[in-house]
Amino acid sequence: MPEEVLRKAASEMLDYKGSGMSVMEMSHRGPVFKEIFDETKAKLKSLYNVPDDYEILFLQGGATSQFAAIPMNLIEGGKADYAVTGRFSALAAEEAEKYGNVNISFSGKGEGFKRIPLQNELRLSDEAKYFYYCDNNTIYGTQWSYIPDVNTELVCDFSSSALSKPMEISKFGLLYAGAQKNMAPAGLTTVIVKKSLSGRELPITPKIMSYKVQIEKDSMLNTPPCWCIYMLGLTIDWITDKGGIEMMQKNARERSALLYDFLDESSFYIKMAEVNSRSPMNVTFRTPSEELDAAFCKEAEQKGLLSLKGHKSTGGIRASLYNAMPIEGAKALVEFMKEFENKNV
Amino acid sequence: MPEEVLRKAASEMLDYKGSGMSVMEMSHRGPVFKEIFDETKAKLKSLYNVPDDYEILFLQGGATSQFAAIPMNLIEGGKADYAVTGRFSALAAEEAEKYGNVNISFSGKGEGFKRIPLQNELRLSDEAKYFYYCDNNTIYGTQWSYIPDVNTELVCDFSSSALSKPMEISKFGLLYAGAQKNMAPAGLTTVIVKKSLSGRELPITPKIMSYKVQIEKDSMLNTPPCWCIYMLGLTIDWITDKGGIEMMQKNARERSALLYDFLDESSFYIKMAEVNSRSPMNVTFRTPSEELDAAFCKEAEQKGLLSLKGHKSTGGIRASLYNAMPIEGAKALVEFMKEFENKNV
Repeated sequence: MPEEVLRKAASEMLDYKGSGMSVMEMSHRGPVFKEIFDETKAKLKSLYNVPDDYEILFLQGGATSQFAAIPMNLIEGGKADYAVTGRFSALAAEEAEKYGNVNISFSGKGEGFKRIPLQNELRLSDEAKYFYYCDNNTIYGTQWSYIPDVNTELVCDFSSSALSKPMEISKFGLLYAGAQKNMAPAGLTTVIVKKSLSGRELPITPKIMSYKVQIEKDSMLNTPPCWCIYMLGLTIDWITDKGGIEMMQKNARERSALLYDFLDESSFYIKMAEVNSRSPMNVTFRTPSEELDAAFCKEAEQKGLLSLKGHKSTGGIRASLYNAMPIEGAKALVEFMKEFENKNV
Repeated sequence: MPEEVLRKAASEMLDYKGSGMSVMEMSHRGPVFKEIFDETKAKLKSLYNVPDDYEILFLQGGATSQFAAIPMNLIEGGKADYAVTGRFSALAAEEAEKYGNVNISFSGKGEGFKRIPLQNELRLSDEAKYFYYCDNNTIYGTQWSYIPDVNTELVCDFSSSALSKPMEISKFGLLYAGAQKNMAPAGLTTVIVKKSLSGRELPITPKIMSYKVQIEKDSMLNTPPCWCIYMLGLTIDWITDKGGIEMMQKNARERSALLYDFLDESSFYIKMAEVNSRSPMNVTFRTPSEELDAAFCKEAEQKGLLSLKGHKSTGGIRASLYNAMPIEGAKALVEFMKEFENKNV
């Protein structure tokens, strides 16, 4: 998270703007929190130019909760198309099978999830209620460079690319993001849903997972994750101060280009994602051996370069370059990679 | 929340114990957070003497999520008994009807939820999979003074009495609490469940709501609400410093007795809960008119006595006396009540 955001939160922690209360202890129905809630929603609406026929929901439960909520609300006992480009879309498809028919439009599993499909590779059903995909695959370091063109409602998990680039919301039926990458601390799930899609839920849908109920209640069916919503507001302020979401995209491209350019020149490191599928958020690579991968992460940590270990399912190295990462962080990593290569080549 | 807890959190916000990271940004699978998680769980286990055949889960979604999760996991297409003593138990019973047969063992609705039933008033089914009740009813200011004696698994929502008194965990199949009253900021739901009750979920249960899955994953099926878990740990430390959970109970009784004793003597204020059903957490009363209720809350706020307005469904006045409230807060409120009575009688 950006240090400025943490500093601001720490400074307001005991007394939010003279209210005599911490955001962590105020009633979610009181006027002070209501203002934080409304302002955060308005800031997000403005940042993404969310059209008026969409609702922004601030929920709990993370992406895993949406894996169930999406089919429960949208599949209507019918069929849905899923593009499986990594672990999280695979889990989403598996969960959806409990509630309807799942057609796998694409699976990258056989290729180790190293790439995003081309538009013409997507096997689309005629009667699908929606098409589901995950925009950025953190574990594999891939990201969709285009918005799929489909004849049904488009549903997108943008947990790890939210707030990192503009999104044309009107192309989607629903977008959602677990907050813990670019948005806010873990515990908040932001859903942007076309209002006309509500009211289709299966009878067994838990009330808390019904988009219809949550839209009617303005996300206040029960106590929302107030602190995370407040932190999201601070994060959006920070983004606006830094030049907006287009600047986040520009910065992300510059940061990741430093790494990708270096990787393209190196004959030591092995790149994991295909060129056209590269993620600006997560850069995945490995050294020639598992032992060197481990040494890489250990030595990097000693230099203050943290959390570089790849996901346990893939091994290797993963550099996560979320919004809060300054370009200097990427430069320092490239410098370290050069040193490590020279020492071990 | 206790000021000491907020101060500690603010001081550690940018750098948790020299880790170079805020708890809000660390990986939930990393060693630093793992230690926070394990320690918080151990502290809660110790505070409540949780037996080894129970699991403590740190989940998201609040009580409303558990309203669905409990029948989905425990009703097995059969029947369950519900004691309806207020708004939240009524909502729980309503949600359970989606997943099985609900028998209302008691309903206080006709009496305005002013009391808790006696043991011999509970109409228990022979074949109920569980008996459900809500220990403390925040809106009506009532609390169960006894643990119901039933021939099935006992399930208890103790959202607004958690950490305020000892509970004999071995009498329960499951206890749960939304954290936002006595435990931590909103966004964490603590479930204490007998392990032998897992594995009975309906096939349509979302994975995130399956106790079996969450027990197997040690609450880490997906990213848990890390910050709230950290804050719960700080709150338990504070309770331990102050003399433990028995001291919380003693303090709560003393605080609320100040108010109840005064209310018993006053002929101006109208008490809302019956004597034997009184909650030490929430004291509910009203003045002779709605206008005076409003004036009471407004004048109290000017004196720094906040959040006294009763729930919109009941009107009147509600004084919430959670753990963080010092006895001086209750004394100040009684003084104000006396003044207000003398001025308006």
